[in-house]
Amino acid sequence: MLRILDTTLRDGEQTPGVSLTVEQKLIIAQALDDLGVDVIEAGTAIAGEEEFRAVKEIANAGLKAEICSFARIKEIDIDAVANADADSVFMVAPSSDIHIKTKFPNKSGDDIIEMSVKAVEYAKERGLIVEFGAEDSSRANLNFVKALFRAVLDAGADRLTFTDTVGVLTPEKAECIMRELTSEFNVPIAFHGHNDFGLATANTIFAVKGGAREIHVTINGLGERAGNAPLEEVVLALETFYGIKTKIRKEKIYDTSKLVEALTRFPIALNKPIVGYNAFMHESGIHTSALLRNAKAYEPISPEMIGRKRAIVHGKHSGKASIMRLIEELGYEASGEQVKEIMKRIKEMEGRGQKVMGSDLIKIIEEVLKVKKGKKIVLKGLNVVCGKSGTSPHASIKICLNGEDIEATALGKGPFDASIRALKNALKEYANKSGDKAVGELVNVKLVNYKANAIIDDKVIEYIEKLVEKNPKLSGLVEKIRIMTGTDAPVDVIIQLEKDDRVVTAIGRSTDIIHASVEAYIECLNKLI
Amino acid sequence: MLRILDTTLRDGEQTPGVSLTVEQKLIIAQALDDLGVDVIEAGTAIAGEEEFRAVKEIANAGLKAEICSFARIKEIDIDAVANADADSVFMVAPSSDIHIKTKFPNKSGDDIIEMSVKAVEYAKERGLIVEFGAEDSSRANLNFVKALFRAVLDAGADRLTFTDTVGVLTPEKAECIMRELTSEFNVPIAFHGHNDFGLATANTIFAVKGGAREIHVTINGLGERAGNAPLEEVVLALETFYGIKTKIRKEKIYDTSKLVEALTRFPIALNKPIVGYNAFMHESGIHTSALLRNAKAYEPISPEMIGRKRAIVHGKHSGKASIMRLIEELGYEASGEQVKEIMKRIKEMEGRGQKVMGSDLIKIIEEVLKVKKGKKIVLKGLNVVCGKSGTSPHASIKICLNGEDIEATALGKGPFDASIRALKNALKEYANKSGDKAVGELVNVKLVNYKANAIIDDKVIEYIEKLVEKNPKLSGLVEKIRIMTGTDAPVDVIIQLEKDDRVVTAIGRSTDIIHASVEAYIECLNKLI
Repeated sequence: MLRILDTTLRDGEQTPGVSLTVEQKLIIAQALDDLGVDVIEAGTAIAGEEEFRAVKEIANAGLKAEICSFARIKEIDIDAVANADADSVFMVAPSSDIHIKTKFPNKSGDDIIEMSVKAVEYAKERGLIVEFGAEDSSRANLNFVKALFRAVLDAGADRLTFTDTVGVLTPEKAECIMRELTSEFNVPIAFHGHNDFGLATANTIFAVKGGAREIHVTINGLGERAGNAPLEEVVLALETFYGIKTKIRKEKIYDTSKLVEALTRFPIALNKPIVGYNAFMHESGIHTSALLRNAKAYEPISPEMIGRKRAIVHGKHSGKASIMRLIEELGYEASGEQVKEIMKRIKEMEGRGQKVMGSDLIKIIEEVLKVKKGKKIVLKGLNVVCGKSGTSPHASIKICLNGEDIEATALGKGPFDASIRALKNALKEYANKSGDKAVGELVNVKLVNYKANAIIDDKVIEYIEKLVEKNPKLSGLVEKIRIMTGTDAPVDVIIQLEKDDRVVTAIGRSTDIIHASVEAYIECLNKLI
Repeated sequence: MLRILDTTLRDGEQTPGVSLTVEQKLIIAQALDDLGVDVIEAGTAIAGEEEFRAVKEIANAGLKAEICSFARIKEIDIDAVANADADSVFMVAPSSDIHIKTKFPNKSGDDIIEMSVKAVEYAKERGLIVEFGAEDSSRANLNFVKALFRAVLDAGADRLTFTDTVGVLTPEKAECIMRELTSEFNVPIAFHGHNDFGLATANTIFAVKGGAREIHVTINGLGERAGNAPLEEVVLALETFYGIKTKIRKEKIYDTSKLVEALTRFPIALNKPIVGYNAFMHESGIHTSALLRNAKAYEPISPEMIGRKRAIVHGKHSGKASIMRLIEELGYEASGEQVKEIMKRIKEMEGRGQKVMGSDLIKIIEEVLKVKKGKKIVLKGLNVVCGKSGTSPHASIKICLNGEDIEATALGKGPFDASIRALKNALKEYANKSGDKAVGELVNVKLVNYKANAIIDDKVIEYIEKLVEKNPKLSGLVEKIRIMTGTDAPVDVIIQLEKDDRVVTAIGRSTDIIHASVEAYIECLNKLI
């Protein structure tokens, strides 16, 4: 069984912008334990009081996993690890010339070996399991790495780690080096890979083929720069294609991924393999119609395997089948001719550069079907006040429901929060007055995904001007494009709501992020009514 | 020289949520041509009037690249391609049982071969270069794929493509299959890879090792689900590690990537290799101090190679060196003792879960240094109104500059736009009154990066409750965590401004996205003064 060392709480937490509290780290450690990782690298015990306390609390939380902490080849680092009650230390010494020179300008390779030996001996004295890593070993002289490994093994190290610190290995090299090392050393050898060229997953897999008995990974591929090898990709590829098993409970991957996203506040890329919002999302016409007939046609694995669900969205590429589905989701029935007319109107509107949002869509459908289902929420007005002032953000809203206009207001922590609270107040008021339970229940829906793609880039316009200048045939295009990539650019908002195990999705677009968000939210509610 | 077929405008444009106008496609085609791709797959000519017009205009734009359009094995599809004046057709027939069954429920493999042959013959009659692809061939019987290839070659196909439609190949298999195919067929064979398991880059590289003479890629790895093989990763890995050259002008990669991001409105992941915001971003203390001494220690390639710049941010992991840099960037001078005190106060504030934002940071620095550099902008008040109403979003702002309070107001297209316009109005007013040119010039800074990480997830709390329930040692943690993953969650905003070739970065955090954005913007301005 291949061992998994998860370093989300150490390498992952070093991601610029990420900063976790002790409590957040404890929850993530519990989630990793539940997920089935063998080793949790809980942080760098020497890196400050908070970090020390985090390692210590995780070490004493009664988890099944081995709890590990990072250390340099220094006694104070090792003392911190041992004092934090960690089971093991991941101790790292520089091994490439560039790292030795940068970190220990006055030391030779022999000095590093000597310091490493002393540090390992000391860690063993302190009762720690020692996993010894040669930092930047993929750019080091392999003979030096071997000499270093030989020396620390003699000093009592329990495991060795080959690290591709700046992500410059290739799969073949990873396999070949691991084969060489595993044939020479009689202890488990681990591989630690980074993703600077997009090769972390392949490198990690090939290291396992070469004999690695443990791999270092992070949830969502968190980590500095392009991140570390992502647990979810490596584990699923190894099991699916190579029949190599780990203790990971695959059905918990998605929940763990979303937990780490929420607590680190580091967004999962929309197109991240396995756990990204788009990974099991289908839009394109041909594909969606095939998909509805046979999910496997465009899915490599079933989303349920990792504990998530498939999503289908309508959009520019939507064929008839997915528009029909959307109409059904909204609770309408339409004939083939009517669906065609609805599609035509949507495409016309989108051809003019407008995104068809919640209220517009219902308007189109009801116009074509010549019906008036009052049981839909239409946003008639929204006034949001926020910024930095003595008062909290607040919103007033006017919706139309079943032919009746309702107004409500609310305070919130931010402009979107205030808007949704105002919307919920309006729904409550309607439900109380009308006794309509279905509307009342809408207040309890869960927002399971929110992505706001605000892409602002003043420089792109310069680049476009340069491109247009080069080609006379493109002259005049800059004006026509209406790129709007400045602060006045449109924002795309994706919202997913869940109610009673049913997940619905909507996309809003507006130059006003709050307006786009509320429209998308209301479109989701209309699907759930 | 390895040939690059870029399918950003076809496979990439099929990404859910992405929708480009004809003008936007033309600009991207020009950018791809400048970048040096050999073939531009410009779209699916049969997919509607707009799509047809896009292919036609690109084909007639006088570009150096071969212009290609997608088609099924149908005469009407091929007619559309030829009528759009494309040089070549990428014609695709299903080859796996599941795809044949889903798309042509009543046809046999032999029928598919017959239809393909006819389609290729027809395309040749229409004067097109024919690249023939076997869809989902990685899940097909290889003997069937070969029989199909043999038949279409006899019919006149010019190139063949092996497609890993759902991303289930492994690098070894990709290499092995391509070796087999290239030894049997005497025409160029291309590889088309998808990233469902994070292996697209490695698979594409190994296909080239196996003899592929052309590869299909997209900018930023755009494409359905987890996307296609990303041009930037594949090209840089091939050149850096394998010495395999392409015609790609690497120094244009970053500009092209940002252009595609802006026009598709599909955000590049923060940790995307090569082109992500974090790819050349450094925060961690140890690393940053080493980096300032020797950039190569934590960078696999220099950012200038692809036309971008390194960025260093301060944050929780920032060591003394990077805090000192930040103080300098803001125009202050501090002694070693003072830097320590500033670090201590920042860490205290962040330990309480607060993000130290622009104004706070200057406050801390000026308190410790006991100076009052008036020449800094401090946000004193901001009132933003937006939503859906008869009026445009608008903002009023109060800033303090050089001891003077200035108020201003502005309309905008969204709440952030209105705020920045109000801020610029305030700066203009100050500059006019005081004659301070440096402040006046701030109005012309360029916003080169804006990322708002609004992560809202109501379900995470449920998962945390489950985790806490399991472990009595964690009881009471839910309250302490203050996760705030609902609509009242804090939003992280990253802003980069550029002035006279100098790029500065700031991160803001607040439950109010607009407040966070404006604080980060002002922190950047303060660095640029």
